Amino acid sequence: MSDTITPRAQNYAMPAEWAPHDGCWMIWPERPDNWRLGAKPAQAAFAAVAGAIARFEPVTMLVSARQFANARAMLPAAVRVVEASSNDAWARDTGATFLLNPAGDLAGVDWMFNAWGGLGHGLYFPWDLDDQIAAKMLEIEKAKRFRAPKVLEGGAIHVDGAGTVLVTESCLLDQNRNSGATRAEMETLLRDYLGVEKIVWLGAGVPHDETGGHVDNLACFVRPGLVLLSWCDDPSDPHYQISRDAESRLRAAGLAVEHIPMPTPMFLTDAEAAGIDHSPTGMNRAAGERLAASYVNFYAANSAIIAPCFDVPTDSEAHSVLQRLFPDRQVVMVPAREILLGGGNIHCITQQQPRKARE
Amino acid sequence: MSDTITPRAQNYAMPAEWAPHDGCWMIWPERPDNWRLGAKPAQAAFAAVAGAIARFEPVTMLVSARQFANARAMLPAAVRVVEASSNDAWARDTGATFLLNPAGDLAGVDWMFNAWGGLGHGLYFPWDLDDQIAAKMLEIEKAKRFRAPKVLEGGAIHVDGAGTVLVTESCLLDQNRNSGATRAEMETLLRDYLGVEKIVWLGAGVPHDETGGHVDNLACFVRPGLVLLSWCDDPSDPHYQISRDAESRLRAAGLAVEHIPMPTPMFLTDAEAAGIDHSPTGMNRAAGERLAASYVNFYAANSAIIAPCFDVPTDSEAHSVLQRLFPDRQVVMVPAREILLGGGNIHCITQQQPRKARE
Repeated sequence: MSDTITPRAQNYAMPAEWAPHDGCWMIWPERPDNWRLGAKPAQAAFAAVAGAIARFEPVTMLVSARQFANARAMLPAAVRVVEASSNDAWARDTGATFLLNPAGDLAGVDWMFNAWGGLGHGLYFPWDLDDQIAAKMLEIEKAKRFRAPKVLEGGAIHVDGAGTVLVTESCLLDQNRNSGATRAEMETLLRDYLGVEKIVWLGAGVPHDETGGHVDNLACFVRPGLVLLSWCDDPSDPHYQISRDAESRLRAAGLAVEHIPMPTPMFLTDAEAAGIDHSPTGMNRAAGERLAASYVNFYAANSAIIAPCFDVPTDSEAHSVLQRLFPDRQVVMVPAREILLGGGNIHCITQQQPRKARE
Repeated sequence: MSDTITPRAQNYAMPAEWAPHDGCWMIWPERPDNWRLGAKPAQAAFAAVAGAIARFEPVTMLVSARQFANARAMLPAAVRVVEASSNDAWARDTGATFLLNPAGDLAGVDWMFNAWGGLGHGLYFPWDLDDQIAAKMLEIEKAKRFRAPKVLEGGAIHVDGAGTVLVTESCLLDQNRNSGATRAEMETLLRDYLGVEKIVWLGAGVPHDETGGHVDNLACFVRPGLVLLSWCDDPSDPHYQISRDAESRLRAAGLAVEHIPMPTPMFLTDAEAAGIDHSPTGMNRAAGERLAASYVNFYAANSAIIAPCFDVPTDSEAHSVLQRLFPDRQVVMVPAREILLGGGNIHCITQQQPRKARE
């Protein structure tokens, strides 16, 4: 394929998440080897997130044929329910990364997907249906599709809409995604498919992040020039060093940094672990595992911030930080432990569709 | 449920098929116990129909997850491909019957569906996915859904958009759809859900029609007051009497009638029958069966008539009749024997979505 068919060559770029949306995409959780108790608690949590977002913008929930009737019954009427098969429920990572050009036309990147690491280190097999999700979203929206030549997930990037992207070395340079790919090649990919100019490399993601360290669980832009970072003040916690390293890299890149506390450490309980199916091709979570929680894993909806809370002491400070940094948006916290148990959070299960020019 | 939530109560009615469309819906054929040779010849025929319609209006093809990649590859780029599970491929019968109100808002009827006759006389089991198709279409289009309280198929009705509907007694009064339902109750259903005033009852459909005699294989409106009837001049053919009975009923209802010849009789060949899977729950077609062919089983697209041809002597006269009756539309004939082998034709596999008011 020629370079001339990259998004960059056609003047497409990824808008910031806080730019106006036409809506939000989610995928209904279902697999019982990731979501405990037949995914019923997770479904309730996803429905609550969808309902919270739907107060501010249209939501489309992609659902398998098996779960179609149940999802339709559990979701608010305002949520559009559309059939789509998937291997799991991470719209951030398997969904299209939407783009706009200066005329306001909608397009999207369909990244290659290998379940965060392929046969050796990925989280499940197969992932063929997940790899079709982006194309299916773009078909439904009749939007131009750019199939990327490399593996990447939407959670591995955060753009400011003004030419800069945040990524982590632990994800983008891990050979479990794109064997043999160099830093320079990954930078070319980001420039060509996101329309960015500047790449800011952080190091590792938050501890125990199963994705290898997605940036969207560690830090995000508040606006161009300002980054919100999940912060740890406990020197005995592995995130202490990670968050300091991230801050120094961000400042070295000329970015201002705000802190949001990492949530009080949480762990998978015996009872929770007992509700997860055993599987030769799935996650096989064990009781006692630390959960990779972060308050930056929120979704910026039109006029709102939909953020996770966990019924832990740090929730209220997190709410205050978000409300202070987004004074024009309503901060809505949704109980998200059941999402966290599956390996991600609200940003991971959502995908914004930017507002295109009306026809 | 209260009568006040019928389409009629909210000023919705079904437009005529020749009214402007926003597009057309189809379903990809797949089941090998209905479509010979693993449905590959039928898929090629459906793709040709989709391509012909797509020259005149947008087409959405609903496709199972299994066939998604294949359908995407076989269909023209202009055709939108959207995942939806189904039991078979009859968008006319399982799809939503779209409605408009005077403000131009889109809605749709989601008829109950029982595979043209239920457990006793239906064509296959199960039909649960087919019964979800209409709801899925309406979700995708974010259109209001009216779930009807009775079984009906879109092929069992033809409206003129001016208050009159054509139906057949052989379908609507057959107790295999709505056990115990009276003629008066079916008329109430049609008035409430299609927004019509006058019901014109024909008798039987064309011979060997597996639906029990859908009107859309027998006759259709050309415009209000004028009906096109599939006609037979051979007194030894069972359609001779059927077409005469239909004509007399139409004239008695004050309608003018034009004739279109029925196609030269065609039969399922040994080779064709040998390509169909045996199945305990499917059609189990046998070589030598007469095929229920009709030229009125066409689709009225924006500015075009997409009609079946069969490579038989009657094709050219049928083309002439259609072009004479629709002088402002381009008549495009598509080879349709492979569709006919599955039990229907172009009208049966299409569903128009009328043009709604722009937002």
